[in-house]
Amino acid sequence: MRPTLSHASAALTHPVEVVDERGRRSRIHIPAERPLTVYVDKRELVTLMTLGGAPEALTLGYLRNQRLVRALGDIVSVQVDWSVDAVAVVTRHGIADVEARTAKKVVTTGCGQGSVFGGLMDNIEQITLPPHARLRQSVVYRIVETIRTQPSIYKQAGSVHGCALLSSDGELLHFIEDVGRHNAVDAIAGLMWLDGVGGADKVFYTTGRLTSEMVIKGAQMGIPFLLSRSGTTQMGHMVAAKVGMTLLARCTGKHFLALSGDERLDFEPHLLEAALPA
Amino acid sequence: MRPTLSHASAALTHPVEVVDERGRRSRIHIPAERPLTVYVDKRELVTLMTLGGAPEALTLGYLRNQRLVRALGDIVSVQVDWSVDAVAVVTRHGIADVEARTAKKVVTTGCGQGSVFGGLMDNIEQITLPPHARLRQSVVYRIVETIRTQPSIYKQAGSVHGCALLSSDGELLHFIEDVGRHNAVDAIAGLMWLDGVGGADKVFYTTGRLTSEMVIKGAQMGIPFLLSRSGTTQMGHMVAAKVGMTLLARCTGKHFLALSGDERLDFEPHLLEAALPA
Repeated sequence: MRPTLSHASAALTHPVEVVDERGRRSRIHIPAERPLTVYVDKRELVTLMTLGGAPEALTLGYLRNQRLVRALGDIVSVQVDWSVDAVAVVTRHGIADVEARTAKKVVTTGCGQGSVFGGLMDNIEQITLPPHARLRQSVVYRIVETIRTQPSIYKQAGSVHGCALLSSDGELLHFIEDVGRHNAVDAIAGLMWLDGVGGADKVFYTTGRLTSEMVIKGAQMGIPFLLSRSGTTQMGHMVAAKVGMTLLARCTGKHFLALSGDERLDFEPHLLEAALPA
Repeated sequence: MRPTLSHASAALTHPVEVVDERGRRSRIHIPAERPLTVYVDKRELVTLMTLGGAPEALTLGYLRNQRLVRALGDIVSVQVDWSVDAVAVVTRHGIADVEARTAKKVVTTGCGQGSVFGGLMDNIEQITLPPHARLRQSVVYRIVETIRTQPSIYKQAGSVHGCALLSSDGELLHFIEDVGRHNAVDAIAGLMWLDGVGGADKVFYTTGRLTSEMVIKGAQMGIPFLLSRSGTTQMGHMVAAKVGMTLLARCTGKHFLALSGDERLDFEPHLLEAALPA
């Protein structure tokens, strides 16, 4: 049973007056940022600071990625009400042992101090990503170009991160932006849950850095390919190597750096000859 | 009484082998990222994911910015032991009511989901930043140039954020990098605590975005000027306007955008005439 969802909407950019280095006044747009307090069965769980573009998917993905709810069928409804900056989640059977499971805090990296309840790394040992998944170089370039030309809040207002879920041919399935890139990942996890799709034949792209938490979330979603236009950190690299994820950093134009899992890549050198001097 | 501090050190970059778009193998350096579990009086409080460059200052600043400890004198010692990825904090009188004060979670923006215990906004109403503080345009440019030429992990390995505390003349007092930019802010708060200095005559610079949490932390430190080479969000802007903070975004070269508090700026138009055509 698919949960009943609200379709809450809110302005994603906000006009402000600014003064530049010459003292000139003008008006620009900046991204919205608003609190969303999550209530599960009338119990306050957490407040997420979000752009507000996909609050229902964010809520679902948050509950999923924090492993607080195991199956979509356990959720009856997700109702966002921006007039009180809150989302009410009703579950079928409650969240067992919620006190204990939200007690342990890991303040993760990203740019921020991400709160991840529970032992984030605990389940990593049990994850194996599909060893036979392949990614063609041309698909990497198609993805980079798709993201580059995608209409976005970033282009209007800056200061947000984008995440995308793509097919193994590079077709864009979902694109989500948020002021917090972990929110964007969570929202995509929520959409995958709603769509009932797995990650084994998907590619995940993020504008943000590939820190440990990003890699862990990608692995939890079962996605073998994680691409970023940014770089990575030691733990992001370590976790990717451990779960057998193909990690591509610095994806811009025709350039990328494979940090792990390069055996899954199909190089197509002719793509470079056309674009660059040898 | 100043607390007894360890001087723990750890490698801040890590070599990895990468494969580029031409299939060429090379070695690059990426930033370290390691867990630091904070124990206060033998009780586990939180795990921070950090670069590891200034773990004692980070721990102090975290306790300060979360308002878990009110005065530096309440802390007897801060001892980091990287062999177990932990820091042991001993307080004089314990943290009163620690259960209740760490129960409310606000997962903030940044690039991550920052965990901020307690009502982050609760004290904002009581903060007033010094109305007569001034910042000269030439100092803004000095700061931008100082950061640009500062030796950094970012230049070696990318994927970290930097924060700096500067005097009102633009002299660099502290520069801290971390994989999480909130960690970098916290570490600077810790150093200010150790130095016994206030923020009223200081300028704060960050490479990261000016989200609500960054502005709130700056305000808590009593700093009237917050500069970034990135942009801002609606709540960052709103909080800055509320506390009377001068917020400069997009600080690069000779360019900046004042989003609030521009009445504190001393414009020096001759600086631009030399650099740019009118």
